[in-house]
Amino acid sequence: MKKRIGFMGLGIMGRAMAANLLKAGFPVTVYNRDKQKTLPLADIGALAADSPRQLADNCDVAILMVTGPEAIDELLFGIDGAAEGLAGKLCVNMSSVSPAYSRELAASLEAEGAVLIDAPVSGTKKPAEDGLLVILASGPEQTVRDLDDIFRAMGRKVVYCGPAGQGSMMKMTVNHLLGVMMHAFAEALLFGERGGLSMDAMVETIQSGAMACPMYQAKAPLLASGNYPASFPLKHMAKDLKYVLDTAYETGAHIPAAQAALGMYLLARERGLGDMDFAAVDKAMRDMLKG
Amino acid sequence: MKKRIGFMGLGIMGRAMAANLLKAGFPVTVYNRDKQKTLPLADIGALAADSPRQLADNCDVAILMVTGPEAIDELLFGIDGAAEGLAGKLCVNMSSVSPAYSRELAASLEAEGAVLIDAPVSGTKKPAEDGLLVILASGPEQTVRDLDDIFRAMGRKVVYCGPAGQGSMMKMTVNHLLGVMMHAFAEALLFGERGGLSMDAMVETIQSGAMACPMYQAKAPLLASGNYPASFPLKHMAKDLKYVLDTAYETGAHIPAAQAALGMYLLARERGLGDMDFAAVDKAMRDMLKG
Amino acid sequence: MKKRIGFMGLGIMGRAMAANLLKAGFPVTVYNRDKQKTLPLADIGALAADSPRQLADNCDVAILMVTGPEAIDELLFGIDGAAEGLAGKLCVNMSSVSPAYSRELAASLEAEGAVLIDAPVSGTKKPAEDGLLVILASGPEQTVRDLDDIFRAMGRKVVYCGPAGQGSMMKMTVNHLLGVMMHAFAEALLFGERGGLSMDAMVETIQSGAMACPMYQAKAPLLASGNYPASFPLKHMAKDLKYVLDTAYETGAHIPAAQAALGMYLLARERGLGDMDFAAVDKAMRDMLKG
Amino acid sequence: MKKRIGFMGLGIMGRAMAANLLKAGFPVTVYNRDKQKTLPLADIGALAADSPRQLADNCDVAILMVTGPEAIDELLFGIDGAAEGLAGKLCVNMSSVSPAYSRELAASLEAEGAVLIDAPVSGTKKPAEDGLLVILASGPEQTVRDLDDIFRAMGRKVVYCGPAGQGSMMKMTVNHLLGVMMHAFAEALLFGERGGLSMDAMVETIQSGAMACPMYQAKAPLLASGNYPASFPLKHMAKDLKYVLDTAYETGAHIPAAQAALGMYLLARERGLGDMDFAAVDKAMRDMLKG
Repeated sequence: MKKRIGFMGLGIMGRAMAANLLKAGFPVTVYNRDKQKTLPLADIGALAADSPRQLADNCDVAILMVTGPEAIDELLFGIDGAAEGLAGKLCVNMSSVSPAYSRELAASLEAEGAVLIDAPVSGTKKPAEDGLLVILASGPEQTVRDLDDIFRAMGRKVVYCGPAGQGSMMKMTVNHLLGVMMHAFAEALLFGERGGLSMDAMVETIQSGAMACPMYQAKAPLLASGNYPASFPLKHMAKDLKYVLDTAYETGAHIPAAQAALGMYLLARERGLGDMDFAAVDKAMRDMLKG
Repeated sequence: MKKRIGFMGLGIMGRAMAANLLKAGFPVTVYNRDKQKTLPLADIGALAADSPRQLADNCDVAILMVTGPEAIDELLFGIDGAAEGLAGKLCVNMSSVSPAYSRELAASLEAEGAVLIDAPVSGTKKPAEDGLLVILASGPEQTVRDLDDIFRAMGRKVVYCGPAGQGSMMKMTVNHLLGVMMHAFAEALLFGERGGLSMDAMVETIQSGAMACPMYQAKAPLLASGNYPASFPLKHMAKDLKYVLDTAYETGAHIPAAQAALGMYLLARERGLGDMDFAAVDKAMRDMLKG
Repeated sequence: MKKRIGFMGLGIMGRAMAANLLKAGFPVTVYNRDKQKTLPLADIGALAADSPRQLADNCDVAILMVTGPEAIDELLFGIDGAAEGLAGKLCVNMSSVSPAYSRELAASLEAEGAVLIDAPVSGTKKPAEDGLLVILASGPEQTVRDLDDIFRAMGRKVVYCGPAGQGSMMKMTVNHLLGVMMHAFAEALLFGERGGLSMDAMVETIQSGAMACPMYQAKAPLLASGNYPASFPLKHMAKDLKYVLDTAYETGAHIPAAQAALGMYLLARERGLGDMDFAAVDKAMRDMLKG
Repeated sequence: MKKRIGFMGLGIMGRAMAANLLKAGFPVTVYNRDKQKTLPLADIGALAADSPRQLADNCDVAILMVTGPEAIDELLFGIDGAAEGLAGKLCVNMSSVSPAYSRELAASLEAEGAVLIDAPVSGTKKPAEDGLLVILASGPEQTVRDLDDIFRAMGRKVVYCGPAGQGSMMKMTVNHLLGVMMHAFAEALLFGERGGLSMDAMVETIQSGAMACPMYQAKAPLLASGNYPASFPLKHMAKDLKYVLDTAYETGAHIPAAQAALGMYLLARERGLGDMDFAAVDKAMRDMLKG
């Protein structure tokens, strides 16, 4: 019999992931602070809980896909929070958090008798909708394996990363690279543009060579058009890179490229681009040269 | 009838490119300071010239694939240099140089009655051997088109970049991105490693997502093994990024990521890694953390 | 009548400051986790409390000079903590903390009926011993003015910085500059040394010009000798610059120089130099170039 | 008898230095491309030459104080250039150039029978006017000593730096530090301002502590007012830091702070601030945060 799922957080990512669980036949109860957002999911078969606690009581596995630690703490340990209802159950956090927070969360849930699976995702809006995310799963290994059918409904691949916290560590590592690559892409294209090259010729050259990747393919039209609809908001990239720096402060990793990239994302955020796609770092870099 | 080609510079790249021209049926005369290096090409049908001037007299199109401006100046304008023999002919420089140097070279050759085609390549040892380079061609457009058969013998794609100098501009733009991406890859993997992740899991995750690219696929084994046989020597990457900074000083481009990357390649060069592959920036970053 | 002072934290800075309060005639009760450290102060007239709570009961003004938030929380709110004994009294925190933490601390103490004066210092070991610190005082303005006799016993100048938290903001601003200036000093001298200049000639030139300052005068001998006895330990500089980055993340300040400096201090810490003076960043920069 | 001096270059610095030589009683012949600029010096006793060659014929010691290599080459080796008239004489270059250029210049002059003294200065407009420059002199040691009366007329101190080229190396080292310190000052003050501190309180605190220096004293009013009249134009600081990077590329020095600073000065230059004082890097940093 399929496990009953409780899904908290119905933003860009969460609503797509919950929809894919429903399509795969799982019974899903959803909760969102703004109840309006539960309606489209109710239309395709989801139950809507009135509180996180009610959701917890009606599921075997609670999944969280929210903006960060504050929202998680509120949903689990706030008034009518889910935690008390999760004794003997699994709590799968798929939101981006720092490894340090994730380890603390595992301990807090353990005190309630629940087991945390720390399983953030690699991929943004489109892969979420298409069920093509990569799941960066961590926690007790067998427990992670037992969740395979659930993960497969949302993603095309599960990478096992180690004990709880290591999924978040992997997510940070991936976003570390992602943040720098986007920054570098914008920087190199601007460099070439100043040197008189056409955007088309540059993108064609890059995508014909060893650096060709889906990310540049997806972002090049945003840079060419100057429009940056958000798949992954810039302010979230800034937050993730901040986690990277916080972690490097602890582990002693030397990360000048991530520092340079974070500096630029923060500058872009400061210039009012935080809600655009993180590719809008290009716009900040372009505009800041104008006096 | 096939154009007669003169090929100067038989290093890692040059010998592979000259061999492919021979395989495609072009008559090729080669010249190299160290004549020993001409022997393998003579074995497959090349003539060996005794001087650049002799080479110039025996070709319609002279190609240069050497380490930089000093070598080019010596071959073209030194004792028994090629330049005087190139009146009415084409000179195709495929070496990496700065756009500024390339424009000067075009003017110097024009004074001798020769036309410069500035056509560096994207791709390293393996694509050179397989005839799969991307040619970044610049100069008079029709003249570039007329060289298509020659370029196709060495590469799988020709991108027309504009007047002479713009091919070099494109090459710098590509290597700007390449240098930062390699730096970022090493940095992110070291960050993750310090956080307890396995190299295999990280590479699997990265190569499963939007950042997957042939370059990371090719370099990951070097980083995993700690051996860095040179496809593209680190000291050459340092040189190319220095051209990028020199050019940005002129054009006003703001390039903190390239600066951070150059700093790290220079540190690696200083630590004696200049002749290894540029992926050895990883080794410098790893070792510099040890007191 | 002189206010009775309770002084918690007898490290390099604290013991010198407490001694100066005693010399100025204030009745001082001291507390330190390691009671051994209270003995030299007892010798010159201090009382030693058995717990922070006992100290609180025996003073009008409690002063903290410890390593950071964890130590402060423990001393104030831990077992036998001082906070409950401070109702109606003043708590002067002179330790380096972030402005955010300082504001939280003010609120926590207010709940206990105590008023926080946030008053970190500019200056290291020698000025502390000589009573020549600069006090960066913040909190209710009149209350700060009323503490003038106490501050003057430890320092030669009091700068009023605004409401509680702003003293810490000033301290971070000062250490931001200090951290970058030290990094820059080491970097420029190493640059010159590589270019064949003598350390003596460089220091003479710098100290003869517009950049001449007591800090360079004090640190030059450390760099020249390669010995770095700690006036201000490098790991504390790293911590302070981390607060700067955390704060800039919130306020949107763009601080690439501080980022570059922090990167280097962390590298030095990682290489085992954390307990040396922060001038030892020079040693890390020097040694990391050796392969 | 006093040596006859030829002085080429009458910009902000040169006219003040030539005037001080006249005041000290030296016979001075001046040359400037724009002859208008020689008039104020003629008023106080200078002769005006019609060409660099004429100047050379009428002096024992030729001094250059111009914008850089192009101007020097033109004055010495251009039409009616000074070089041919300098056989058996001294040529003192006080302009900022790279050590590499300075060594080349020494060789070129040696071929003409002249000796180069490479002697750039530390100090800007005001010290130049007051005769309080620091002279960074290099070349044959006894020859440098013999110029002491001339140098003392323009400066308060002569630092002997080694063979020709080392004065320029020292100048770069000093400007390396200067460029970073100014960048750091602006960055730290902006950081503090964003955190709610007043400019006055910050400057008072900094100038009361170990970082107090004449440079910050001089620049603080420019930052406070937002007006940046040029003592040392920003574009020249950018040029000097570029020399620093070029030199570090050769020597293997690792200079991330200088790189970060240069990035910011170039951004400021790009925003149209190149002719303002280099303190205007503050304006660029301030304005670039506004979207």
